[in-house]
Amino acid sequence: MKEKPKMIRLSEEHIPKAWYNVQPDLPKPLAPPLHPITREPAGPDDFAPLFPMSLIAQEMSGESYIEIPAEVREIYKLWRPTSLVRAERLEKRLQTPARIYFKNEGESPAGSHKPNTAVAQAYYNKKEGVRKLTTETGAGQWGSALALGCNYFELELQVFMVRSSYAQKPYRRVLMETWGGKVDPSPSKLTEFGKKMLQEYPDTPGSLGIAISEAVELAVQADDVKYSLGSVLNYVLLHQTVIGIEAKQAFEMIDDYPDMVIGCVGGGSNFGGTALPFVKEKLAGSDIRLIAVEPTSCPTLTGGRYEYDYGDTAGMAPIVLMYTLGHEFVPPPSHAGGLRYHGASPIISLLVNEGVMEARAYHQVEVFEAAMTFAQTEGTIPAPETSHAIKAVIDEAVKCRESGESKCIFFNFSGHGMLDLSAYDDYKSGKLSDI
Amino acid sequence: MKEKPKMIRLSEEHIPKAWYNVQPDLPKPLAPPLHPITREPAGPDDFAPLFPMSLIAQEMSGESYIEIPAEVREIYKLWRPTSLVRAERLEKRLQTPARIYFKNEGESPAGSHKPNTAVAQAYYNKKEGVRKLTTETGAGQWGSALALGCNYFELELQVFMVRSSYAQKPYRRVLMETWGGKVDPSPSKLTEFGKKMLQEYPDTPGSLGIAISEAVELAVQADDVKYSLGSVLNYVLLHQTVIGIEAKQAFEMIDDYPDMVIGCVGGGSNFGGTALPFVKEKLAGSDIRLIAVEPTSCPTLTGGRYEYDYGDTAGMAPIVLMYTLGHEFVPPPSHAGGLRYHGASPIISLLVNEGVMEARAYHQVEVFEAAMTFAQTEGTIPAPETSHAIKAVIDEAVKCRESGESKCIFFNFSGHGMLDLSAYDDYKSGKLSDI
Repeated sequence: MKEKPKMIRLSEEHIPKAWYNVQPDLPKPLAPPLHPITREPAGPDDFAPLFPMSLIAQEMSGESYIEIPAEVREIYKLWRPTSLVRAERLEKRLQTPARIYFKNEGESPAGSHKPNTAVAQAYYNKKEGVRKLTTETGAGQWGSALALGCNYFELELQVFMVRSSYAQKPYRRVLMETWGGKVDPSPSKLTEFGKKMLQEYPDTPGSLGIAISEAVELAVQADDVKYSLGSVLNYVLLHQTVIGIEAKQAFEMIDDYPDMVIGCVGGGSNFGGTALPFVKEKLAGSDIRLIAVEPTSCPTLTGGRYEYDYGDTAGMAPIVLMYTLGHEFVPPPSHAGGLRYHGASPIISLLVNEGVMEARAYHQVEVFEAAMTFAQTEGTIPAPETSHAIKAVIDEAVKCRESGESKCIFFNFSGHGMLDLSAYDDYKSGKLSDI
Repeated sequence: MKEKPKMIRLSEEHIPKAWYNVQPDLPKPLAPPLHPITREPAGPDDFAPLFPMSLIAQEMSGESYIEIPAEVREIYKLWRPTSLVRAERLEKRLQTPARIYFKNEGESPAGSHKPNTAVAQAYYNKKEGVRKLTTETGAGQWGSALALGCNYFELELQVFMVRSSYAQKPYRRVLMETWGGKVDPSPSKLTEFGKKMLQEYPDTPGSLGIAISEAVELAVQADDVKYSLGSVLNYVLLHQTVIGIEAKQAFEMIDDYPDMVIGCVGGGSNFGGTALPFVKEKLAGSDIRLIAVEPTSCPTLTGGRYEYDYGDTAGMAPIVLMYTLGHEFVPPPSHAGGLRYHGASPIISLLVNEGVMEARAYHQVEVFEAAMTFAQTEGTIPAPETSHAIKAVIDEAVKCRESGESKCIFFNFSGHGMLDLSAYDDYKSGKLSDI
């Protein structure tokens, strides 16, 4: 084996030239999305009021590789390739013979993997003459990533931020504004639906469902305004495959290779982006394990049903076949805002249902214990969402210690927790509910 | 010229094996520090109650290079070498023929250059049997870096955090606690001086001067407790020279070289660490310019006097020859908490006084304008302190546009502003005073 440095940093010529589309390699085709009202299979025209045609084409593409536009790769160069890091100090703390690696997506300016798709979506919208994007955001991870993307392609951005987060988490709002986004608390007076909600429930803290409805309402009103979604969709997972593709190149350089690939799952985009490039070999008979990790408080893959359901709470989004807790399911408040979605990406759902991927769930307190162990060994503070993956990594590494096996565990460090430090404060002061 | 990538990322074998000590190369020797009470030249024994002997030896060393212990380099590997980044998008925005580069010290787990010395100081204290360190912190940059260092060498840490910051900026307190530091608002009931202040001024917001006095009081009481300072001292600048040494290696790889080196100055450690490795060639006749940037609200180098003064407000610290605004000078509140020191490092002061380095000052609003330009072009959010350097970089790049000269401008990106976003909020809402 070659020498193994702490950080494996590829140079910019290793930024992938194409995204990997798993669709032609899936063990069975994805079930068609249905129109929310007619319940008939939805075609490109049904999505046209919301999304640009190039993204709709990617959503349904049968090509294995889709070229990354030069303009998008130029922006990726601001932080990509991200480092592949050997977590030696974590290994030592756990006294495990396992080799632990993580891909540090927290290196992006927004601090998470989200800009990988935000930049691409902004590019395609701009190219098709769109003037303005709308979106929703909870804690602000997605909104800030999209603000960064819109900043680079000179698009206006209207973000509907869940009112309770808008009040409690001002930092990510400021981040969005710094990159030129306009942010309003949702429900807002900018939409009919928002006004109706404010009239009926003047003190509502808002919800992601309401915010989506507002963003969609604004988008469908004008031809040059579109809506942008940061997870779940096939093309979002597609854009995120830069993570897994880069990781494979880095592993090749150090002559090592994962025995398991681990990521947290909300909608499924960071785990998909990391694990999908390993699916083909898994289907060809490899022993590699692809492990999705979710919170017990929103156990979509481990506790949901695999059936057709609405993508949104209000029942306005397409109906898709996925693992779901029911579109009216409201998870309890938690610090992993990015994992509080009632469904999961149809691609991830299919692969879990087919046994290609596995899933597990953890409680909030054990997740923060894992986050503390990581912060005290590797230094970097993980986001609460990312810490779910870390908890699974630690469990697998401890199993290796017990069995004496030296496995290679690879996980995606989907984002840092610099703007989530209040969650750590709650944990340490014993205020964290163990949901 | 070789190809020039956006990011120049060295591999870990490029982490320097020795720090560069500028002292033997200075145009004249540093004036001796004086004892605060006797006003006689202070020797090693005078510093022994506060600092370990190995650091005191470094403070007075005449060696040109001091080996970096393997244990310290091991920790450096968690984030070093930091990237040297070509700021092409900033260049394009400014339409300048200048080539702009920055060293990204925001890549450390604490988000700034401060861990370069914090880790080293923790190591030497541990090696000499110290059990616990004490320190003061304002906004928390230094405190969090030292907490990271103590975490790795299993030292206890007591941080006295200025009371107003403790209340207003909880995030960095949580960061310190996550890495195992104990943080109390200052004045506190842990010291006699703190108790006295609380009795006399129960509503005091605290100050850095009070916090220093508390940290020192606690340190001198026990042999196995020492005090740690994050700037100003010769050995702090010494530890920071990893920045400039790495930068030189990176420039060599791309066959380019700075015409000017720019950094912000509070105590002087990040600018010193960046610029000192270029001093020898400047003294040998090179045209390279070394530019220190400070706030007009605390204009130590541009508005202070070069004379002997106390290092602290209370007059308990050694008297040193430096640029100073007077040890009783209290700068107005600003968002650049790290630049609010009445003095400047004796080394930087001597080099400015000798004309080897130059200094300039900027107002707060123009500094934030520069920060916004940077965030919207390069993506990353700069700390308010760092933004002072960016303002100078932009001014120099605009001069190049006007003169048509293609100069190479290099600056130290001393830290990111993810935990300073409230300052950006003030700027954008017009609440920022233009001090």
